[in-house]
Amino acid sequence: MRDPEHQGSVTALPITQPATAELISHGGDLDVARNRYPAAPEPWIDLSTGINPVPYPIPELATEAWSRLPTRAEEEALLAAAASRYRVPNSDMIAAAPGTQALIQLLPRLVRTSHVAVLGPSYEEHEACWMRLGHRVSVVGDLGQSEHADVVVVVNPDNPTGRVVSVDRLRAAASALAKRNGLLVVDEAFVDVLPQTASIASDLPPATIVLRSFGKAYGLAGLRLGFAIAEVSLATRIRSELGPWAVSGPALSIGEAALRDPHWLAAATARLQSDRRRLDAMLEAAGLAIVGGTPLFCLARHFEAVKIAEQLGHHGIHVRTFSREPQWLRFGLPGDEQDWERLATALSGA
Amino acid sequence: MRDPEHQGSVTALPITQPATAELISHGGDLDVARNRYPAAPEPWIDLSTGINPVPYPIPELATEAWSRLPTRAEEEALLAAAASRYRVPNSDMIAAAPGTQALIQLLPRLVRTSHVAVLGPSYEEHEACWMRLGHRVSVVGDLGQSEHADVVVVVNPDNPTGRVVSVDRLRAAASALAKRNGLLVVDEAFVDVLPQTASIASDLPPATIVLRSFGKAYGLAGLRLGFAIAEVSLATRIRSELGPWAVSGPALSIGEAALRDPHWLAAATARLQSDRRRLDAMLEAAGLAIVGGTPLFCLARHFEAVKIAEQLGHHGIHVRTFSREPQWLRFGLPGDEQDWERLATALSGA
Repeated sequence: MRDPEHQGSVTALPITQPATAELISHGGDLDVARNRYPAAPEPWIDLSTGINPVPYPIPELATEAWSRLPTRAEEEALLAAAASRYRVPNSDMIAAAPGTQALIQLLPRLVRTSHVAVLGPSYEEHEACWMRLGHRVSVVGDLGQSEHADVVVVVNPDNPTGRVVSVDRLRAAASALAKRNGLLVVDEAFVDVLPQTASIASDLPPATIVLRSFGKAYGLAGLRLGFAIAEVSLATRIRSELGPWAVSGPALSIGEAALRDPHWLAAATARLQSDRRRLDAMLEAAGLAIVGGTPLFCLARHFEAVKIAEQLGHHGIHVRTFSREPQWLRFGLPGDEQDWERLATALSGA
Repeated sequence: MRDPEHQGSVTALPITQPATAELISHGGDLDVARNRYPAAPEPWIDLSTGINPVPYPIPELATEAWSRLPTRAEEEALLAAAASRYRVPNSDMIAAAPGTQALIQLLPRLVRTSHVAVLGPSYEEHEACWMRLGHRVSVVGDLGQSEHADVVVVVNPDNPTGRVVSVDRLRAAASALAKRNGLLVVDEAFVDVLPQTASIASDLPPATIVLRSFGKAYGLAGLRLGFAIAEVSLATRIRSELGPWAVSGPALSIGEAALRDPHWLAAATARLQSDRRRLDAMLEAAGLAIVGGTPLFCLARHFEAVKIAEQLGHHGIHVRTFSREPQWLRFGLPGDEQDWERLATALSGA
């Protein structure tokens, strides 16, 4: 599709050049799997993400949610629902974005060129987005190794390992960062299905930004909705970077309804925990070792992980592999009984 | 809602400070009107925007559009539909964003600190977003006054005046800008309902970025969908700034269907042109002078415009006023016969 005739002379324009980042592979792009295993049975089962396979039911939407520009009152209603759900004392501390990825892209723009430590290996977009904007990024295996960083990024619980850093340790890190005018970023994309005590959002230390994803726990990743939680002046800055009407009318409406529905989330969490135990048992029976995860996904290890991923691919089941950790496989949860049975069959090598 | 306890010490963090921009007033925020005229009859008629009041019918959406992460193939299908609709030879020249506003926020980040000329007065977000990032911005009344600018921004047709700069003049401006390593930005938010010859997108000169809004002509502003069209390397840069999954699953799906439906757009354009004539006649009968517009809105002038806006407000009809031009009123089109009748009654002062 690249047409050199239209490639033009962008370097001659006043356009600045960003540091280039390698293309990151993600779960969720089923077309790639489909192309690789063209003879696999349809429909494909996508276990390559950590998205709840039983989504929050889409409520009846008013025509105006689609047709009108979202109003400030609608955005404030969503932020109030998010404040209530995340136990944040003041909805002015929250910024709503069209997906957490938009916030991951944005944060490196707010900070002067810094030394950034990402606790990892973890979700690769953090590392890539900070590097792309010219920050110096180190991946550190332990918070204790981040002493010289201006910015520390912790995905908590981690994706894909599920490692949880305690709120006490995060609070100590935030305190140390605040003393050296630094910043702590805690990406809580998968925290909704853990106990409330796993989140630092409800009692935010200074110099801390928390990211919360809507789509994963609520099973609505296509809706594009995520939040940043920070002190008011910083949240205001993030809202201003995003600009007006950043979140769609349907996302405002569905997000508000879902975040105001604690019963649905409690029931979903119980089901996910039970399904996760079932998944672990099934993977262990197939000879994989469970090395981590959250109620939304399981990280398993096998010395022939790549071969198992191929075997699953031939059965029309897509799981996440990791080029940096070739013995790892990440499994999302099957959504219905038929998918559980297809997974069991595929794992048995039949 | 501001709580000084959470205001914190953002200036002590490594956060950079942007130039502040004043809050811009926009059409479309009906809650403000509702608060101002609490005794006005419901439902309010919102004529304060230039959005088609008869939206493209929302097709049945697959559950996956909401639940799954949007795939690259879905995004490519949308870009192909946009390339076909906008007659762009190569869909790699297009970037899709969650609304044109996201692109207006983004462009000033791509360009080294420059002298920017905005042909105006025009849609205020351009001026504000370039200033906010530290660019030097002049508003010029004629393209001929932009000779010393590195970046020239033209809203074409203009909002709110409807002024159309010919493609030939734009092409000459682009050519002059290319010679001095500059950049031309043409915001074609309202061009869909004009003849094809009004758009420069189909034969893009060098050093030019065209912005296209989806929500206005298709009446789906809440969906949040807009496009940038530029040479491939620049479009690639814009896609990379937006990051993955920038556009929601519903917007990908609905956008593709609508952009592939020329018959709907042709019928909508014919209806809008006819409705615009009806609106002009009604406003002239009420003593207003028509000074501009497009088939999606009418700009009218009256020495007591503010008083007329108040009179309409008391009747539950919201129109756009302009603090810089207090004799101007912008009227969107009523969506059904009842709204036309209410407008006629309100204008007659009854």
